[in-house]
Amino acid sequence: MSTVPALANIAEAAVRIRSAIHRTPVMTCASLDNETGARAYFKCENFQRTGSFKFRGATNAVKNLSAADAAKGVATHSSGNHGAALAAAAKAEGVAAKIVVPENAATIKQENILLHGAELIHCEPNLQARETKLEEVVAAAGCTIIPPYNDFDIIAGQGTASMELLEDTDSLDHLIAPVGGGGLLSGAAICAGESQPGIRIWGAEPEQADDAKKSIDAGRIIPANPNTIADGLQTSLGTLTFEVISKHVEDVLTVSEAEIIAAMRLVWHRLKIVIEPSAAVAVAALLAHPSKFSGQRVGIILTGGNVDLNKAATLFNC
Amino acid sequence: MSTVPALANIAEAAVRIRSAIHRTPVMTCASLDNETGARAYFKCENFQRTGSFKFRGATNAVKNLSAADAAKGVATHSSGNHGAALAAAAKAEGVAAKIVVPENAATIKQENILLHGAELIHCEPNLQARETKLEEVVAAAGCTIIPPYNDFDIIAGQGTASMELLEDTDSLDHLIAPVGGGGLLSGAAICAGESQPGIRIWGAEPEQADDAKKSIDAGRIIPANPNTIADGLQTSLGTLTFEVISKHVEDVLTVSEAEIIAAMRLVWHRLKIVIEPSAAVAVAALLAHPSKFSGQRVGIILTGGNVDLNKAATLFNC
Repeated sequence: MSTVPALANIAEAAVRIRSAIHRTPVMTCASLDNETGARAYFKCENFQRTGSFKFRGATNAVKNLSAADAAKGVATHSSGNHGAALAAAAKAEGVAAKIVVPENAATIKQENILLHGAELIHCEPNLQARETKLEEVVAAAGCTIIPPYNDFDIIAGQGTASMELLEDTDSLDHLIAPVGGGGLLSGAAICAGESQPGIRIWGAEPEQADDAKKSIDAGRIIPANPNTIADGLQTSLGTLTFEVISKHVEDVLTVSEAEIIAAMRLVWHRLKIVIEPSAAVAVAALLAHPSKFSGQRVGIILTGGNVDLNKAATLFNC
Repeated sequence: MSTVPALANIAEAAVRIRSAIHRTPVMTCASLDNETGARAYFKCENFQRTGSFKFRGATNAVKNLSAADAAKGVATHSSGNHGAALAAAAKAEGVAAKIVVPENAATIKQENILLHGAELIHCEPNLQARETKLEEVVAAAGCTIIPPYNDFDIIAGQGTASMELLEDTDSLDHLIAPVGGGGLLSGAAICAGESQPGIRIWGAEPEQADDAKKSIDAGRIIPANPNTIADGLQTSLGTLTFEVISKHVEDVLTVSEAEIIAAMRLVWHRLKIVIEPSAAVAVAALLAHPSKFSGQRVGIILTGGNVDLNKAATLFNC
């Protein structure tokens, strides 16, 4: 489908995926609020199945397949959370999944995909090779491609995270979500924008992967040239996500690599939860803009917790 | 009071401290259950105020002071979680707190005590110096000593963690709690033993701080000679906790330092939460005894999350 979902489609997705997903908790932290002057509500998608919000969209897409398509299986290319999410979502529905993965992808992420029972197909580590290999797989097996973000069902599924956050809090003034390909932020913007007029929606992205900020400012999609530890935010906006974000999002706030690491450390230390760098980007945006958020009620989506502990240790000790 | 509390005293403590504490969540983890063959229910006291269950007992003790005693303040010696917990519990009730701390205590733990508004009093790093300094402080200020574990109110307060865990789960077969001084395990044994006949209560401690195991086996208190990364479990049993644990606890399971680190890593990785080594000891006991726990429903108290992230990083990278 080439249109963007509406609030009603997110509500439908919420019903469709309810029995498959975890309803993740919303955490608060008094000591962190003392520092920021804001009242922050953290939606803990690091506790979602497969360790990220991506399981929502993948589950919505898989559950929406016709019986005939489901029998032929699904496929995607991914080096990260979408691959694991699709693997697990497909397995839960008894659908075969093939995930094209660059041969240099992190071992932990490849293991995560295998753990969830998908077939792993290696390709050379560039976008062209990924797309070519995926086309070959689809041609051979006749399976359905489930894209990572620029898709009606995916955006609707990711929007359910914001829907739950709004249900579990009272009248937020702001909502901050990290933006990579823009599926989560689009879902947040549609859901919050339509259901809670007056709330301000912000994207957050690394300075070193600031394609969304540049795209919104330029009025056209500018591809990413990323160089960031936030490995979930290296993708560029798609046509659908660009359309939604341009229309509904207040602005995209950018943060430095050092701010991302500091925010990640702060969350681990204070909230006692493990989040990945991409999730920390939204927290870093809160910390970097006290003038915007002080005295305000701010919802933040902690997108995932899939981080190599050894790598995180190296970051913290630098 | 020199007697041990009963279930009714724990229930009274639960009412007394309800408005001051967090009711912490109980988490489950399907992938971890697949590995152990057990169904584990994790009581997340790492999310408790001040980052450990110690806030429960300290709050119960402070709230039980007479007005005259409260006006004169409280004191304890501690290099860890009890000090921070007493500081915060006292502050919440408007009571002055003095915490005697060995001058070589971890900076992060000293900062935690100061953060919660207590007066920090340094002493030389040995038990004799700690007790002498505490006696001086008490003689000068007339304040009340709140001991870390061998105390009626403290044991009753810590027991509320197990009471909540039992309320939030159905018919557990086992409950595992780490044992240092034994306040938490005593509270668990009294609460679970009296309210749920048939449940088996286990202590868990480091092989390298196995005084509780030795004491139970010998039928008398054998002091600890600890050398473990589980810094919350270095203390020896007291008279009250020895009495309770001897009577109600199935056995004390011991685990190696390597097993503690592996369990801590597993919880961070799979549950996406930060726990300290002392909390990991109970998880390590579950992992080390598949024959005892496979096919069973096991409650585990994750005691705290106060860990220096740099130190944890060093452990993980070894």
